[in-house]
Amino acid sequence: MSLEESFQSVRNHSLYLCSHLITEDYSLQASEEVSPPKWHLAHTTWFFEQFILVPNDPEYVVKHPQFNFLFNSYYNSLGARTARNQRGLMSRPSVDEVKLYRAYVDEAMLRLIQKNIPAIQELVILGINHEQQHQELLITDLKFSLWHNPLNPVVMDISEYRAEQESNWVSVEAGVYEIGYEGNDFCYDNELNVHKVYINDFSISSALVTNGEYAEFIQAGGYEDPKYWHDEGWSWVKELEVKAPLYWEEQNGDWYYYTLNGLKAIDKNASVAHVNFYEASAFAAWKGLRLPTEFEWEVAQNLFEWGKRWEWTNSAYLPYPGFTVAAGAIGEYNGKFMVNQMVLRGASVATSEGHSRPTYRNFFHPQYRWQFMGIRLAKSL
Amino acid sequence: MSLEESFQSVRNHSLYLCSHLITEDYSLQASEEVSPPKWHLAHTTWFFEQFILVPNDPEYVVKHPQFNFLFNSYYNSLGARTARNQRGLMSRPSVDEVKLYRAYVDEAMLRLIQKNIPAIQELVILGINHEQQHQELLITDLKFSLWHNPLNPVVMDISEYRAEQESNWVSVEAGVYEIGYEGNDFCYDNELNVHKVYINDFSISSALVTNGEYAEFIQAGGYEDPKYWHDEGWSWVKELEVKAPLYWEEQNGDWYYYTLNGLKAIDKNASVAHVNFYEASAFAAWKGLRLPTEFEWEVAQNLFEWGKRWEWTNSAYLPYPGFTVAAGAIGEYNGKFMVNQMVLRGASVATSEGHSRPTYRNFFHPQYRWQFMGIRLAKSL
Amino acid sequence: MSLEESFQSVRNHSLYLCSHLITEDYSLQASEEVSPPKWHLAHTTWFFEQFILVPNDPEYVVKHPQFNFLFNSYYNSLGARTARNQRGLMSRPSVDEVKLYRAYVDEAMLRLIQKNIPAIQELVILGINHEQQHQELLITDLKFSLWHNPLNPVVMDISEYRAEQESNWVSVEAGVYEIGYEGNDFCYDNELNVHKVYINDFSISSALVTNGEYAEFIQAGGYEDPKYWHDEGWSWVKELEVKAPLYWEEQNGDWYYYTLNGLKAIDKNASVAHVNFYEASAFAAWKGLRLPTEFEWEVAQNLFEWGKRWEWTNSAYLPYPGFTVAAGAIGEYNGKFMVNQMVLRGASVATSEGHSRPTYRNFFHPQYRWQFMGIRLAKSL
Amino acid sequence: MSLEESFQSVRNHSLYLCSHLITEDYSLQASEEVSPPKWHLAHTTWFFEQFILVPNDPEYVVKHPQFNFLFNSYYNSLGARTARNQRGLMSRPSVDEVKLYRAYVDEAMLRLIQKNIPAIQELVILGINHEQQHQELLITDLKFSLWHNPLNPVVMDISEYRAEQESNWVSVEAGVYEIGYEGNDFCYDNELNVHKVYINDFSISSALVTNGEYAEFIQAGGYEDPKYWHDEGWSWVKELEVKAPLYWEEQNGDWYYYTLNGLKAIDKNASVAHVNFYEASAFAAWKGLRLPTEFEWEVAQNLFEWGKRWEWTNSAYLPYPGFTVAAGAIGEYNGKFMVNQMVLRGASVATSEGHSRPTYRNFFHPQYRWQFMGIRLAKSL
Repeated sequence: MSLEESFQSVRNHSLYLCSHLITEDYSLQASEEVSPPKWHLAHTTWFFEQFILVPNDPEYVVKHPQFNFLFNSYYNSLGARTARNQRGLMSRPSVDEVKLYRAYVDEAMLRLIQKNIPAIQELVILGINHEQQHQELLITDLKFSLWHNPLNPVVMDISEYRAEQESNWVSVEAGVYEIGYEGNDFCYDNELNVHKVYINDFSISSALVTNGEYAEFIQAGGYEDPKYWHDEGWSWVKELEVKAPLYWEEQNGDWYYYTLNGLKAIDKNASVAHVNFYEASAFAAWKGLRLPTEFEWEVAQNLFEWGKRWEWTNSAYLPYPGFTVAAGAIGEYNGKFMVNQMVLRGASVATSEGHSRPTYRNFFHPQYRWQFMGIRLAKSL
Repeated sequence: MSLEESFQSVRNHSLYLCSHLITEDYSLQASEEVSPPKWHLAHTTWFFEQFILVPNDPEYVVKHPQFNFLFNSYYNSLGARTARNQRGLMSRPSVDEVKLYRAYVDEAMLRLIQKNIPAIQELVILGINHEQQHQELLITDLKFSLWHNPLNPVVMDISEYRAEQESNWVSVEAGVYEIGYEGNDFCYDNELNVHKVYINDFSISSALVTNGEYAEFIQAGGYEDPKYWHDEGWSWVKELEVKAPLYWEEQNGDWYYYTLNGLKAIDKNASVAHVNFYEASAFAAWKGLRLPTEFEWEVAQNLFEWGKRWEWTNSAYLPYPGFTVAAGAIGEYNGKFMVNQMVLRGASVATSEGHSRPTYRNFFHPQYRWQFMGIRLAKSL
Repeated sequence: MSLEESFQSVRNHSLYLCSHLITEDYSLQASEEVSPPKWHLAHTTWFFEQFILVPNDPEYVVKHPQFNFLFNSYYNSLGARTARNQRGLMSRPSVDEVKLYRAYVDEAMLRLIQKNIPAIQELVILGINHEQQHQELLITDLKFSLWHNPLNPVVMDISEYRAEQESNWVSVEAGVYEIGYEGNDFCYDNELNVHKVYINDFSISSALVTNGEYAEFIQAGGYEDPKYWHDEGWSWVKELEVKAPLYWEEQNGDWYYYTLNGLKAIDKNASVAHVNFYEASAFAAWKGLRLPTEFEWEVAQNLFEWGKRWEWTNSAYLPYPGFTVAAGAIGEYNGKFMVNQMVLRGASVATSEGHSRPTYRNFFHPQYRWQFMGIRLAKSL
Repeated sequence: MSLEESFQSVRNHSLYLCSHLITEDYSLQASEEVSPPKWHLAHTTWFFEQFILVPNDPEYVVKHPQFNFLFNSYYNSLGARTARNQRGLMSRPSVDEVKLYRAYVDEAMLRLIQKNIPAIQELVILGINHEQQHQELLITDLKFSLWHNPLNPVVMDISEYRAEQESNWVSVEAGVYEIGYEGNDFCYDNELNVHKVYINDFSISSALVTNGEYAEFIQAGGYEDPKYWHDEGWSWVKELEVKAPLYWEEQNGDWYYYTLNGLKAIDKNASVAHVNFYEASAFAAWKGLRLPTEFEWEVAQNLFEWGKRWEWTNSAYLPYPGFTVAAGAIGEYNGKFMVNQMVLRGASVATSEGHSRPTYRNFFHPQYRWQFMGIRLAKSL
């Protein structure tokens, strides 16, 4: 696929994800952490406008002078931001205006792409990857917001994932391994540089933990015994009176969960999702096992199937040796988040096609659950 | 106007107020205290359905079983409520569905009204007044929500009010006066019963305080000197770093304010609005004057023009002698709010026609400013 | 008793109240609303130093330049304040140093009092009354702080109050009555001026509500039914999961309460205490009755015994006609609190001797319970 | 030194640290994170009583049945806890009673130690190390609490630390190194097991950053430019309006800091202290350098002087390979805190003698500053 085709395909996919939304859905923002679909559609467009068209196309006229203010995210160096928790209040510009903005920017982008300027092509690839990241967030943010509606809206068919493999332990021998991205395709700065890591003998499960296994943990009183939990995890359980993964609810003794396809009885054989790091760790402790490190995961990943659940690791999100921050606004991308977050490896049912690889490092604060986060167990030998 | 005509006129007016809204605007809720336009349209409809159609029309079929849950407000006795601060998250039902709900209920209501049953007619009048109250809130809530948008949306032309009268002092002699509603038309329970109040000699200003006069208070450092303020008012000023009425902003030394007609330079001759009780009291103290009591206001109200600004009084919202709470859900209407609120008298530019009278008691917590609240001064003699 | 004797008697009484405290108790501050005993001892001393000695005695040398900063309370006009919620952190000056400060100021005060200067005598009387107010707070603040200690400390014997009178209804006829303090003794500015109030026919109970009667309200589900409660009261009950008055706890089906004399089984015949305005109002509503207004109370007070419980009225704390704020720092005394508070009439078991009269207006926010607040019922006729 | 002598020496040292306190100081708790001196004295005693005497000495009678409740800390498995932020409210038991409690337990402990039972000796060593940890906290908690007092109390002489070495870069070659404690003396479970880590070429500074160097960072606008900060660090700076390390204050253009010996002008040649991880990282970024990892620090530690400042590393606090949690209450010790905290290496001026070693892993949340935390810089080669 040419860069032009990739660009068009990814841009179309964002709109495709919204096919079943009504206008009112585009503004939903149920918490500060999530953003409305309209904002995702606009922000990804602004990224192309601000970082590619404005600096590189002297004939380009910005669509609206205030869009920079409205659709900026965390790029402090580019100026004041709209309060993050008020994105849902931006009824104007309308959904239609945002779609026109997309079309306007796309047209200018396509003209620019056709000039085949290498430095720009690299930026376009970054913009495409940026939009793919937001496609996943669009789906998961929307799920979180719609869940607040007692009518259980149906907007998308994201099927559950059932492992086809039998669960078994695969082992890796101790030694020095190479970690990090090596190749000529796109990767983020946080996957660089390739470096050596010493890893001890370990085994890792070929299968993800299922809803059924997780329900046993609940049934066994897992949420009532502090001994399985981090101190902070236990405070989180007590303060919010947590009893199950996000989206689960009990009705007459049976567990149901909200999906983008409506409320469903849980599928015991499907992989559990929407657990946070505290829950993943507590489940592992209950089993007498542990989560893998991100290095163990990367070394073993070709020994099992992955790609439907982001998998919590017991590695904090920290820079690789020799990591440096790129100059300018784009340089803010990753390094500034390297504290208090845990690494997730893999990808999920909401990840856009082509947006996963073995070295990809996703990261979230330990308390968050609204991504399709799952659990894979490991043990030291 | 017949009851049927009144009903239709009021119902149409709610939709008329929304003529210039785009679909996205109907869901805006910028704080817990305000509700989205869609919710106002649905809640007022639900009131007719729940309190009139369901108990009185055996053939009536409720439009949707969950609307009772979604569009209930503070009527605890009718069951669980949707969290008040999440009304903006209810993207479904859509605006169109809510409009169909209105039409469906209106049709059933009109059939019922035509039966001329006195007990029902009384309830219809209550429902009409209830909807008129929500019409005012729809306007003021919307103003508050749209103000958060840096694009300063234009949706309605509510003109500023300039007093035509000269400002002068009108005096009332001490004595026992009658307070409260007496007559055969509609009034709320909190206006009853007529009772005697002893009032001392006082004077009251024939004119409301203007933006120009209020700007002088700002200029003189009124927001920087605790001696004019209630202790709570001063805490409010310091904590929120308040420097002017709601919606005012300074640009290069000049004051502007957001109106439903966009951002405007302030009109110095127009009556000030969007001040809270603390500000109204501090302004009065700075002038060496005071706010009138609600009884003084009611006794003097035929001596001056009023109706464009709700006017803060120095009376707490408390029951009149012999006040009793009506049985059932409608009985929750007023008594339960009789603590920590101050009475406002008059009406405002956002008040629906026919929804004001000299005995009407509006009430808000002292910190709120989003209604068209103004200041009229008084003094003891 | 001469002014000199009064001064000495009141000053000694503050120390007497602390007879059974250990040094550690003097610093306790369990919430922002309460102050430590040491602070009360120092602040009342500072009042004499700052408002009487410094302006009137040219030879007086302030004890310590920073005490003005440390022991000031809400007198904004005198300069910066120590954060109110950090009074418990002031381990220095020590209790012994504060006692020396008291002795030092007392000596200077006695020299000044002996000069018999009328203007100063008036200020001394204000200072004495100020200290008596703080004596009551010292007791009730200490009770609140000590209650947090699972060891249930015993520090003072404040006996329970049992009414000796039978409970019956006493009635008052409608008419214009005079309200407010008239005489030559001390009163606060908020009791002035004498003015006329029109009162309707009413009856008032000669007895206070007892613990036994209040326990019936609890037993009958009073804390579970919103229909008895103000909207704000109900939110308070739900948010804090309130089930009984402050200091009550259930053990195996029986009610106990913490007293300054340790944990005791409740005395069913004693008057209930430590209920807030919401609870007092809800209890009255459950009985089909109401609280009296402060005017009704003042007019009827000679018809019943009072003085052991501050009695909630249904009157908001507002200025009497013609109320004016005195110039200077002392002028901040009362007017600045005239919003969002309810009037209590009477006095309590913690009130110092000589510090009560029929026109005394105490006031607290509706949610507070840590004073000895009780309930007297009334009804319209 | 015999175990008996060590025990007595450490127990005495806790009291020695309090030599200059007045009774009122023992109860100070200025935030939830710090504990009062009295609590530290009692909690360390309770540890010996609860974990050694109660299970091992059948004749031992607990001093007071409620002390278990009052002086427990985070050991959830032992039962309910007093709310952590209310330790300052426990005026009873008094300081004197706590000292008697210490003497009572010490006597019983000495009898038990003299029996020379190996399993108990191991527990005694744990208890001694536990008390030494609390000695450091006693000092740093007290400093934090006393700092709130405008009188700048003087209670202890902890001198500033000036490096004697010249600052230069020392380098370490890449390779596999062994990390973790190996030996027969005491260490915590989090220092185990010895394991291999691959480390890249790096250099590390032989000297700590000084107050003078840090003042240059402030002067250069370091607290005003987001580009040096983690995203969370920048939020922390903005929300709390941070402008300098904890305890620093500017007076007429000069910097002073509060020390346990009173307020002092900063010593520019002394090592900076009381900076958090965000500040340490931002300073390093401003210098174009970075913090070392805990593994780099451990490998290089014999090449420089350390022991006066806890040194922030860029390593998250995570388990070493093969880490397992011990059974029972003591097992809660370390593993439960292994999330959202960063490792500090070294020791500080407040660390008790004999309580430091090259493999010791201290850990705090990134925002905390009240320990003597300093900065050592590193760079990749």
